[in-house]
Amino acid sequence: MSSLERVGVSLDQHLLAEFDQLTAKQGYTNRSEAIRDLIRDRLSAEQLEKPTANAVAGIFLVYDHHSTALTNKLLHLQHDHVLNIVASTHIHLDHHNCLEIIIVKDKVQKIQALADKMGSLKGVKLSKTNMISIT
Amino acid sequence: MSSLERVGVSLDQHLLAEFDQLTAKQGYTNRSEAIRDLIRDRLSAEQLEKPTANAVAGIFLVYDHHSTALTNKLLHLQHDHVLNIVASTHIHLDHHNCLEIIIVKDKVQKIQALADKMGSLKGVKLSKTNMISIT
Amino acid sequence: MSSLERVGVSLDQHLLAEFDQLTAKQGYTNRSEAIRDLIRDRLSAEQLEKPTANAVAGIFLVYDHHSTALTNKLLHLQHDHVLNIVASTHIHLDHHNCLEIIIVKDKVQKIQALADKMGSLKGVKLSKTNMISIT
Amino acid sequence: MSSLERVGVSLDQHLLAEFDQLTAKQGYTNRSEAIRDLIRDRLSAEQLEKPTANAVAGIFLVYDHHSTALTNKLLHLQHDHVLNIVASTHIHLDHHNCLEIIIVKDKVQKIQALADKMGSLKGVKLSKTNMISIT
Repeated sequence: MSSLERVGVSLDQHLLAEFDQLTAKQGYTNRSEAIRDLIRDRLSAEQLEKPTANAVAGIFLVYDHHSTALTNKLLHLQHDHVLNIVASTHIHLDHHNCLEIIIVKDKVQKIQALADKMGSLKGVKLSKTNMISIT
Repeated sequence: MSSLERVGVSLDQHLLAEFDQLTAKQGYTNRSEAIRDLIRDRLSAEQLEKPTANAVAGIFLVYDHHSTALTNKLLHLQHDHVLNIVASTHIHLDHHNCLEIIIVKDKVQKIQALADKMGSLKGVKLSKTNMISIT
Repeated sequence: MSSLERVGVSLDQHLLAEFDQLTAKQGYTNRSEAIRDLIRDRLSAEQLEKPTANAVAGIFLVYDHHSTALTNKLLHLQHDHVLNIVASTHIHLDHHNCLEIIIVKDKVQKIQALADKMGSLKGVKLSKTNMISIT
Repeated sequence: MSSLERVGVSLDQHLLAEFDQLTAKQGYTNRSEAIRDLIRDRLSAEQLEKPTANAVAGIFLVYDHHSTALTNKLLHLQHDHVLNIVASTHIHLDHHNCLEIIIVKDKVQKIQALADKMGSLKGVKLSKTNMISIT
């Protein structure tokens, strides 16, 4: 962790009041922290635009767990990427549906390709991937 | 316009260097301005979450202008909202397709309903709305 | 325009009922049209991922029109891209603020670079770009 | 699970060819499945617009695990929502940073409020929430 630097920003009073109100609602007790988080978010979003950036992601899949063929295909796909899959968590949503969250560390484009493959399997009803850049 | 206030933010040197690099690439010559824009963007996004917030929007529609029935329906919809429609711009994309950008000032939910109605008309191939909150 | 092909899709009754309800609310009178629009949207989103794809965009800028320096810089930027700028529309939002919508036809990455440059100018308070792929 | 219904959609040949190419790249072996997934995605996105819709979410938090105060605050927040927190997974990213994925089942607005509170804690560097609607 490198050392801290102090930066000054001039802000219109009205804009500042609105920002303080929003961040207080979110739970921030510190304006500096709220601004830092905006900057980190922006940089992370920028990183994720690059196909070769390093990222960690959760691939969320909703599927019918009665389909044993699907469970096997998902396992095979995970084993093909075994070095990059960190963990997976399985949750029962209702009698038919379960949610599986597969956590992967890889390049952005590799994660996207794996998520596409998993999401397109017959029996997977919904898929949605959450990516975070890591540096 | 209210008066300016000076705010101090402590930032990790490494984070600051990355932010300076990104904003220089975008064209910013001033770090303070880049941070202000992040704050304005965040507040604007928050406003647009409220169905009754005031906004101005461009409804972009791609359609085949050979369909005269559609042109009439679009005109009728615009006249129903005549007090809120500010302007519209028509652009020829190719032999068949044109792009119409209809600029509307209204509440978020009213704009969304109008955009849905226009986008669902037969002959409209693509529609995409860009909203900006106004205070 | 090529000829039409008929495609059959099997859908769970419950899913279909939900979809019919949503699209009726949006204004669709025809299920086939609603599905076509989903497909066109998906393809357009995919195209816009490619930096060299052709697109048309509206760059929305909110700025204080009392800043004559800014108005000149915006004009210069537009003239540098004169072959690609199709039109621009100017709207008075209130005493201080105006909205300018600059319509550009270019490659995705060129449009993004121009939008970044315009959005980072001192005096531009908000900027937001709406892109549509053209084929 | 209700019974299946067969729906016919007329599609321009050119549009269909593009769609088949995209979905083959993603891994779909079946066009009907690809269209069903588009419909499910659209319905899920619509549901998540409603603050009181039921959802399951992963709240992703990147933080420095050397901050014991933060770890305690996160645990307290989780215990306040104990009935809704399904599981949490902790991953070491590097010497300083870890990623915690907290899985919550609740109403959309409750999940958002919890994610805001967690994301605004001092020491949390990045937060990003992935929500899926459940019916």
